[in-house]
Amino acid sequence: MRKPLILVVNDDGITANGIRNLIKIMNDFGDVVVVAPDSPQSGKSHAITLEETIRCDKVKIDNGPQIEYSCSGTPVDCVKLALNKLLDRKPDLCVSGINHGSNSSINVIYSGTMSAAIEGALDGIPSIGFSLLDYSKDADFSESTAFIRLITKQVLKNGLNDGICLNVNIPKSINQQKIRGIRVCRQARANWVEEFEERTDPKGRSYYWLTGKFINYDKADDTDEWALANQYVSVVPVQFDVTSHPSLASIKKLFFNE
Amino acid sequence: MRKPLILVVNDDGITANGIRNLIKIMNDFGDVVVVAPDSPQSGKSHAITLEETIRCDKVKIDNGPQIEYSCSGTPVDCVKLALNKLLDRKPDLCVSGINHGSNSSINVIYSGTMSAAIEGALDGIPSIGFSLLDYSKDADFSESTAFIRLITKQVLKNGLNDGICLNVNIPKSINQQKIRGIRVCRQARANWVEEFEERTDPKGRSYYWLTGKFINYDKADDTDEWALANQYVSVVPVQFDVTSHPSLASIKKLFFNE
Repeated sequence: MRKPLILVVNDDGITANGIRNLIKIMNDFGDVVVVAPDSPQSGKSHAITLEETIRCDKVKIDNGPQIEYSCSGTPVDCVKLALNKLLDRKPDLCVSGINHGSNSSINVIYSGTMSAAIEGALDGIPSIGFSLLDYSKDADFSESTAFIRLITKQVLKNGLNDGICLNVNIPKSINQQKIRGIRVCRQARANWVEEFEERTDPKGRSYYWLTGKFINYDKADDTDEWALANQYVSVVPVQFDVTSHPSLASIKKLFFNE
Repeated sequence: MRKPLILVVNDDGITANGIRNLIKIMNDFGDVVVVAPDSPQSGKSHAITLEETIRCDKVKIDNGPQIEYSCSGTPVDCVKLALNKLLDRKPDLCVSGINHGSNSSINVIYSGTMSAAIEGALDGIPSIGFSLLDYSKDADFSESTAFIRLITKQVLKNGLNDGICLNVNIPKSINQQKIRGIRVCRQARANWVEEFEERTDPKGRSYYWLTGKFINYDKADDTDEWALANQYVSVVPVQFDVTSHPSLASIKKLFFNE
């Protein structure tokens, strides 16, 4: 039987610890092809490169059977390039990450990691984004491994419904407290409150750094924020149909009482 | 009574004809502040600028009462900067566009125009993205005006439900056929099939241009693609909760039969 073909992507860049760990895990499940950005692409969301050209080179980063390509584009460019130029067949699985930092709740719409998984889902590939709640470059991914293995195994075996992918966030171990399990949940209603930091350059012109504070407005216990705060791995099924179906009737009323 | 404060954004850049037309329309409805990118940002989706600094300068592009800022960031950066640094109160309306080209169906997730509107909605501002189905720089926006006025009037008067914004696409006039009206509809299931164009640079190294073909798999008559093909303006309510609520039960089953 042919081994599964697994596409590995991320948004922190091809040399990040998170993707190096994910590649190692995926090598146990199938034939791995990595197509990942040559530089950090955090916060790039579903951006694609239209105004510039894209470079893509075969590279060897570390040992292992995986085939790897480093790409100048965004995470979504990487998936498109993989599916349309680099792979000779459709992958059986697309995994993205392991992201250094949370992609829970509203972060899903800013995240390059999650958009790569969503792009995989758009093309009918079972796709998962993995994130660890630790922004550190030297984050410890060891406790994540068992959960990534379990979720990968289930998705490879059962597939996913058409039109969705999974957003998996893994809590950081605090005070040696072990992860308590997996919770399938919805995206919490949360938001960033921005606090742009204004600075002056050596020529006296001002510029800004985007910073911000995350605020969770949603105190229910069926959300990803609740799961993570309670030391569970959160799994949110994410869809790319962004139509607000429950609003169709009221918006119809707004225009000509249809 | 105080006039409404209207934030105007786009992704084609502050000098594009589409936004110049939108500013003119909005000047009739309230006090207009424009915060728009200094260069084309098509396909930038919900990207934010984290790795680089952001410049923002007050500019005067053409006549009119509007106040304008040109920003080096993405469309979403523009909205964040407007709300957190440039405006002294929360806008009553955020409009984005008029985009040169369609943002119907799956284009909504790649579009900088729509992400700017979604970002407005995230902050509780009634928000609308407008797009004309004509990629040309010199597109004719004259027939759009009446529909943009009507939709703006309704949204200013009635507001929008929490958690949504509107994705408005306007058909291009073909063979002098007039627009037949407005259809409130759902996002069609469609996709881009990419065909990267590979070229060789003067040094002999290869590079790619992203190109593609749009394919609509969805033949139902309640979609935006149907509306536009039948010469209607399409209005899709768009939400930023991307949880696939109908999938929660089956995904729970996948993990431990919860």
